[in-house]
Amino acid sequence: MGLFTKRYHPPGTTPGTLTAVTRTSEQRPLRISLLDYDEDRITELPDASLADCISHTSDSKASWIHVQGTPEPELLHALGEAFGLHGLALEDVLNSGQRPKAEVYDGQFFVIMGRPVWRDGELSMEQVSLFLLERLVISFHQGEGDPFEPIRRRLRGASNGGFNQRTADYLYYALIDVVIDEGFPLLEILGERIEDLEDELLENPGQGTLNDIHRLKRELLLLRRMLWPHREVLNVLLREEDRLIQPGIKLYLRDCYDHTIHIMELLEAYRDMAASMLDVYLSSVSNRLNENMRILTVIATTFMPLTFIAGLYGMNFDRASPWNMPELGWRYGYPAVVTVMVVVMIGMVGYFRRKDWL
Amino acid sequence: MGLFTKRYHPPGTTPGTLTAVTRTSEQRPLRISLLDYDEDRITELPDASLADCISHTSDSKASWIHVQGTPEPELLHALGEAFGLHGLALEDVLNSGQRPKAEVYDGQFFVIMGRPVWRDGELSMEQVSLFLLERLVISFHQGEGDPFEPIRRRLRGASNGGFNQRTADYLYYALIDVVIDEGFPLLEILGERIEDLEDELLENPGQGTLNDIHRLKRELLLLRRMLWPHREVLNVLLREEDRLIQPGIKLYLRDCYDHTIHIMELLEAYRDMAASMLDVYLSSVSNRLNENMRILTVIATTFMPLTFIAGLYGMNFDRASPWNMPELGWRYGYPAVVTVMVVVMIGMVGYFRRKDWL
Amino acid sequence: MGLFTKRYHPPGTTPGTLTAVTRTSEQRPLRISLLDYDEDRITELPDASLADCISHTSDSKASWIHVQGTPEPELLHALGEAFGLHGLALEDVLNSGQRPKAEVYDGQFFVIMGRPVWRDGELSMEQVSLFLLERLVISFHQGEGDPFEPIRRRLRGASNGGFNQRTADYLYYALIDVVIDEGFPLLEILGERIEDLEDELLENPGQGTLNDIHRLKRELLLLRRMLWPHREVLNVLLREEDRLIQPGIKLYLRDCYDHTIHIMELLEAYRDMAASMLDVYLSSVSNRLNENMRILTVIATTFMPLTFIAGLYGMNFDRASPWNMPELGWRYGYPAVVTVMVVVMIGMVGYFRRKDWL
Amino acid sequence: MGLFTKRYHPPGTTPGTLTAVTRTSEQRPLRISLLDYDEDRITELPDASLADCISHTSDSKASWIHVQGTPEPELLHALGEAFGLHGLALEDVLNSGQRPKAEVYDGQFFVIMGRPVWRDGELSMEQVSLFLLERLVISFHQGEGDPFEPIRRRLRGASNGGFNQRTADYLYYALIDVVIDEGFPLLEILGERIEDLEDELLENPGQGTLNDIHRLKRELLLLRRMLWPHREVLNVLLREEDRLIQPGIKLYLRDCYDHTIHIMELLEAYRDMAASMLDVYLSSVSNRLNENMRILTVIATTFMPLTFIAGLYGMNFDRASPWNMPELGWRYGYPAVVTVMVVVMIGMVGYFRRKDWL
Amino acid sequence: MGLFTKRYHPPGTTPGTLTAVTRTSEQRPLRISLLDYDEDRITELPDASLADCISHTSDSKASWIHVQGTPEPELLHALGEAFGLHGLALEDVLNSGQRPKAEVYDGQFFVIMGRPVWRDGELSMEQVSLFLLERLVISFHQGEGDPFEPIRRRLRGASNGGFNQRTADYLYYALIDVVIDEGFPLLEILGERIEDLEDELLENPGQGTLNDIHRLKRELLLLRRMLWPHREVLNVLLREEDRLIQPGIKLYLRDCYDHTIHIMELLEAYRDMAASMLDVYLSSVSNRLNENMRILTVIATTFMPLTFIAGLYGMNFDRASPWNMPELGWRYGYPAVVTVMVVVMIGMVGYFRRKDWL
Repeated sequence: MGLFTKRYHPPGTTPGTLTAVTRTSEQRPLRISLLDYDEDRITELPDASLADCISHTSDSKASWIHVQGTPEPELLHALGEAFGLHGLALEDVLNSGQRPKAEVYDGQFFVIMGRPVWRDGELSMEQVSLFLLERLVISFHQGEGDPFEPIRRRLRGASNGGFNQRTADYLYYALIDVVIDEGFPLLEILGERIEDLEDELLENPGQGTLNDIHRLKRELLLLRRMLWPHREVLNVLLREEDRLIQPGIKLYLRDCYDHTIHIMELLEAYRDMAASMLDVYLSSVSNRLNENMRILTVIATTFMPLTFIAGLYGMNFDRASPWNMPELGWRYGYPAVVTVMVVVMIGMVGYFRRKDWL
Repeated sequence: MGLFTKRYHPPGTTPGTLTAVTRTSEQRPLRISLLDYDEDRITELPDASLADCISHTSDSKASWIHVQGTPEPELLHALGEAFGLHGLALEDVLNSGQRPKAEVYDGQFFVIMGRPVWRDGELSMEQVSLFLLERLVISFHQGEGDPFEPIRRRLRGASNGGFNQRTADYLYYALIDVVIDEGFPLLEILGERIEDLEDELLENPGQGTLNDIHRLKRELLLLRRMLWPHREVLNVLLREEDRLIQPGIKLYLRDCYDHTIHIMELLEAYRDMAASMLDVYLSSVSNRLNENMRILTVIATTFMPLTFIAGLYGMNFDRASPWNMPELGWRYGYPAVVTVMVVVMIGMVGYFRRKDWL
Repeated sequence: MGLFTKRYHPPGTTPGTLTAVTRTSEQRPLRISLLDYDEDRITELPDASLADCISHTSDSKASWIHVQGTPEPELLHALGEAFGLHGLALEDVLNSGQRPKAEVYDGQFFVIMGRPVWRDGELSMEQVSLFLLERLVISFHQGEGDPFEPIRRRLRGASNGGFNQRTADYLYYALIDVVIDEGFPLLEILGERIEDLEDELLENPGQGTLNDIHRLKRELLLLRRMLWPHREVLNVLLREEDRLIQPGIKLYLRDCYDHTIHIMELLEAYRDMAASMLDVYLSSVSNRLNENMRILTVIATTFMPLTFIAGLYGMNFDRASPWNMPELGWRYGYPAVVTVMVVVMIGMVGYFRRKDWL
Repeated sequence: MGLFTKRYHPPGTTPGTLTAVTRTSEQRPLRISLLDYDEDRITELPDASLADCISHTSDSKASWIHVQGTPEPELLHALGEAFGLHGLALEDVLNSGQRPKAEVYDGQFFVIMGRPVWRDGELSMEQVSLFLLERLVISFHQGEGDPFEPIRRRLRGASNGGFNQRTADYLYYALIDVVIDEGFPLLEILGERIEDLEDELLENPGQGTLNDIHRLKRELLLLRRMLWPHREVLNVLLREEDRLIQPGIKLYLRDCYDHTIHIMELLEAYRDMAASMLDVYLSSVSNRLNENMRILTVIATTFMPLTFIAGLYGMNFDRASPWNMPELGWRYGYPAVVTVMVVVMIGMVGYFRRKDWL
Repeated sequence: MGLFTKRYHPPGTTPGTLTAVTRTSEQRPLRISLLDYDEDRITELPDASLADCISHTSDSKASWIHVQGTPEPELLHALGEAFGLHGLALEDVLNSGQRPKAEVYDGQFFVIMGRPVWRDGELSMEQVSLFLLERLVISFHQGEGDPFEPIRRRLRGASNGGFNQRTADYLYYALIDVVIDEGFPLLEILGERIEDLEDELLENPGQGTLNDIHRLKRELLLLRRMLWPHREVLNVLLREEDRLIQPGIKLYLRDCYDHTIHIMELLEAYRDMAASMLDVYLSSVSNRLNENMRILTVIATTFMPLTFIAGLYGMNFDRASPWNMPELGWRYGYPAVVTVMVVVMIGMVGYFRRKDWL
């Protein structure tokens, strides 16, 4: 994942401008779904047109418009007109890569969240934008795969106890909850990677381990930057006294808030682990360097004197003079020298053994 | 202890869902005990059935239901129905590995705590969940051994002054106090390990020491992550103005709070010590490397010139020419060369001695 | 960019003193522009004289005096007299290199901002000073190039939706917004540099990489120091309850505030990345050192014994004695010695292979 | 000083339990002194019995009971009964090694402080516990030597201006002040040790220096842990609005508070110095390693080619063939080779000099 | 500058004691000046006696007593009596080396500041103590050179706009402002030193560079410790609602406050730079170590095999056996061996070139 992922208009552009910033590579096909429900019934329009959404009026307890994929400026403009969405909010929906935040406008809540996705061993972040209006939720997800499918299944009354409260604010909470809880499986994966790296570190560390640790640190850093503001998002929602969110829903949001705290603490702990692993890596490298050095020192220290002695008796001094290398003429000269060599060697080995080097 | 120990439902599951998450390896047999007491009498039912608990009504001042082991979803469901326990709380009881927290629902307090356990040289955390209702405490402990046995002994009027106040809120405090105070013996063990490691570090450090320091750091990190939220738990209980906890109990809870602070400060100090030990380890390794290097340099520097001189006079130049190696023909050539060698050697040794290398 | 860029009078000078501090190298030519607008019309005076500004009175909804370049003390003095600007504020306009800050005087807002500029691979900071009075904005920019040209284009009713609200406070917001948003392209450039450095680091690190990382860290540090106080500036403006800024503008300022937070978080993440890169660099250097060492050790360990053996049989002991080097007279002496050498070599290579050194 | 010095009862013990925790080695003989004073007179009972204290009633303005040494549970129990001291407080007096804290019970103040003592080059902490009641101060000191002797001298009207206000709360302040001010001489000693270590570091660092730095860091860490909570103790006393402490005394306590802040800042600065010293130590070690390496490289690089050349002409090729080593037969072969050697050597030395290695 | 510079009485001394602590070396001659002024006139008594000061009464708008040098206890005592100065404050004036602080007594403000002085390449701190009473300022400066001379010049109506408001509180502000603003030239000097060190670091780092960085870090640390509390001093003055300081002066004090913040931020940035420089230094050392190692490895790896080959053919096996060293008898034996050597050498050089070592 790149370090800088925000999309922005050139400085000085009018705020609320809805023209596409052209980074065409990220475009994803668009699909709008519409869903209407009461305590006891549910109406789905899985592939709605823009007109369907705009002309949509209903007296059911809650409606949900979900826009999947990269939205076009015209679509946003039309939705904004139809439902009175704030211009600054729409600009943030368009320019993905925003920092998660919650904004409370008059009569509407707007939340941007980051959905961390682990795909093909690569971490990326997909922007989720959520509007809460009176009896209406509008959600945008710029990425592959619809994270809200389980919610839809629950609304249809399928498994897992269904939907506790069939109101727009509960739906709003449920969508936020899904995005936040996707952090847990991701952290489980990362936790396993850290433990694998730790094993590798203790058994057979190499330059690859180093690069892996660096990549891990980078991912944890980016993940932390992404997820940290979620805490603030929930804080804003919990603090706000607005009739759009009933007091009973606050309890659920507080549970959500606890999850973000838990995730942040895990991330902090992972970061500490990664830092500690780097220290251990460096220490292991130093240790191995030391071991190499020791071996080299032992070898050099053992053989250098021996080679010198051998060289000494390889000199060609004129034996005519009795002063020149008489040892060469001794009867037991060679065995004596070899004995000296063996003694030197044993002395060396003994010395190193006493120093715990062998 | 693993890095990631939380159990969770897949994202998008209805909050409050009570289906077991299958990590069967951790299952522990279930045992429920029931205890009823007044100022002057106490009734115990050490092996109660679920029905006993549910049908249990009493006009005594306080009742205590303790569930030891991994609870089944059905049990939790039934208890929740019988006593009006909140669904989110029950889900947290089921999905162990939760972050400690205190939750105040209407007419009930709910606290999750982590009980750090040191077993077979391995640190693990067992979840303790505590409900406080009107004249009733329900506690869950997912782990081996019952940490609340001393409380039961005190209630029975045994040694150590018995039980100061025979009310449910005092019992609630006493259970929290036990879990927090178990941190002290653990920290004492860790403190001794740190001091042992320090001795090892100064006397005979090796790769094993490094791994031990890493393990220690990891344990301190995990322990800190576990125990840090206890502070917040007690904060919530101290702040709450609710008739469930009488003002007189606050004094005891504040004492408890001081203990968590003391434990956290000790942990911080330990972490600083561990970080400092790693630095010292790295320095020692560098020092040893330096020493090896010095020996190697001394040996090489001493013998290389000597070997060169020996090699010089081992050359086979044709002695017919008077210009070629006349030294070989000198009467005292050999002694002269040996003298030169000895002088070189003494010069080297003197040089190194002046440099404080020998 | 230098570490210390503030200009100051000698300690003890009267506050509000408007004499030039002579650092003449930084002088830039002065140009004043005057702009007057209502909902539907706009009057521009692109090259106004000081007299134009001072004598300027208008009943349009908003006027804007922009001073581009290094202002002279006399100019500031005259402007201060004409519009009642505070002496301390004018001193700060003159002594550039001030820390960004917002000051609320009676009936006037004063904001100093730092505009980070990346020119010729060099980071520098240009001071922007902004006064907001009743229906009047006075802006100063000490640097090259006018950052406010896009605003002027929008006021003229050109592209990009024009100007939402034609009031002085909206203009004030728009100017602040431009300066802050210039951080994003800068951060994009820095983000790319970091990623380039990361690639270089993994592929071919050298002393140049180290110096680049150091320069990067330094720039991030300076940038952070410059931009950090912007957060506080916006905080002051958001907190202030004054009729100079209408409540509707606060929403826009809050958007601005979110941008400063986003920028600071990116900077923090970059700093963490840079720190991590330095660690990886150091580790790589250690790794290479280790590899060199290993090669040296392998070579030395392999050849030293062989050279010793060769030296041994180069000794010149007197072969007359049967005890002296009888091996030299053996029929297969030479092949035997060579065989021993080959065996030693193979043993060494095998040993190193088992140790994963080859 | 050990890392873990707290004494505690096993988890689950009734709070307020007053049974001795047996660490007999630390027992110190007990001595109780009783002191009664008014504006103009003073009564001392330097060796009072328990009965004296309990039966003690007085209408003087202030009384002071000081218990020196390790108190027995029975004594504490009796004092608690006689003066209505809180059970939790008495338990903390008994179990020394507590974290400093201030507790405000109804009608009594209770303060635990740590008195840092530097004895025989060893740092230790002695617990001081102070009760303030109506017109009565009860103090406990578990350690050697009575730190409150100067107070007694001042009360007796001796030198140094005597006692400003002859009330119990002023006495309470004076006792706290003594314990806190004992930090200054200790910090002066530590400051000198740091400066000595710095000199040693720059002149002649070794493994001993490393161990000294580690010990210093450890002591600073422990000292900080001990003294940090004093700040909070004074905060509690300053905040509390209680008739036991008159407003006029607050001014003195604020002075005390400033001293704790000063001490903590000094400690932080010392810790930074110690960390910086460790860095310098590591750098010095690296520098020396580098120097050794350089010497080795110079020696090896200079002699290896020479030795090779010497070895070359030590080969025994059959001179019968005119292709084999004709140099050996040249008239000036030997001088030529020696000249080559000298040239190589001079070249090497020149190269190293250009590289600033010699 | 020493680490511990505070002067203190032995613990247990009565607070407010005014006896000299004998560190005679620091004594500086005493000089008292007296200054009286109104809107339009000014009376100076440059060398006043103690009696002049005490008997001094005046109905002018403001008086200023300045005591330059180390004050004697008697002088302080007399001043304290005459003007009702608080005993604790006077003790702090006497015991220099105090932590900067602001104290608000009834009817008097007392401020201690630290004036950082850079003299002969050495950093030191001189204590400035300032009392503000009704229409009277009393200032003490323990050090060389009078920092307040510019103020006096301004009061005399000299250059630089004179004195804005001729009241005691404005004078009080002006004195504080002078002391704080002296930080800027000091920081400019330090900034230049850092940039010089950076250049040295990139070009030619050595042990001297390391010691300089350490000294710099130490100075920054001490400076930070000194100047940090100034922030708090100004906070106290800004917060205080007292008739001694008129609201109009607050604006000036806020400007002062901004300067302290600016200074602290510069100091923090400098500290970060210094830390980063140490990292770069360590990396450079590692890099050079690596380069040395590489050279050594190249030399050893190139010459060791050659020397071995030379040694091989220096063996003296009996050529009578056709198996022994037949190469020596070959016609082209020598050229062949030299060719082999050259090939080995070229191979080595090629290998190292491919590895980017040459």
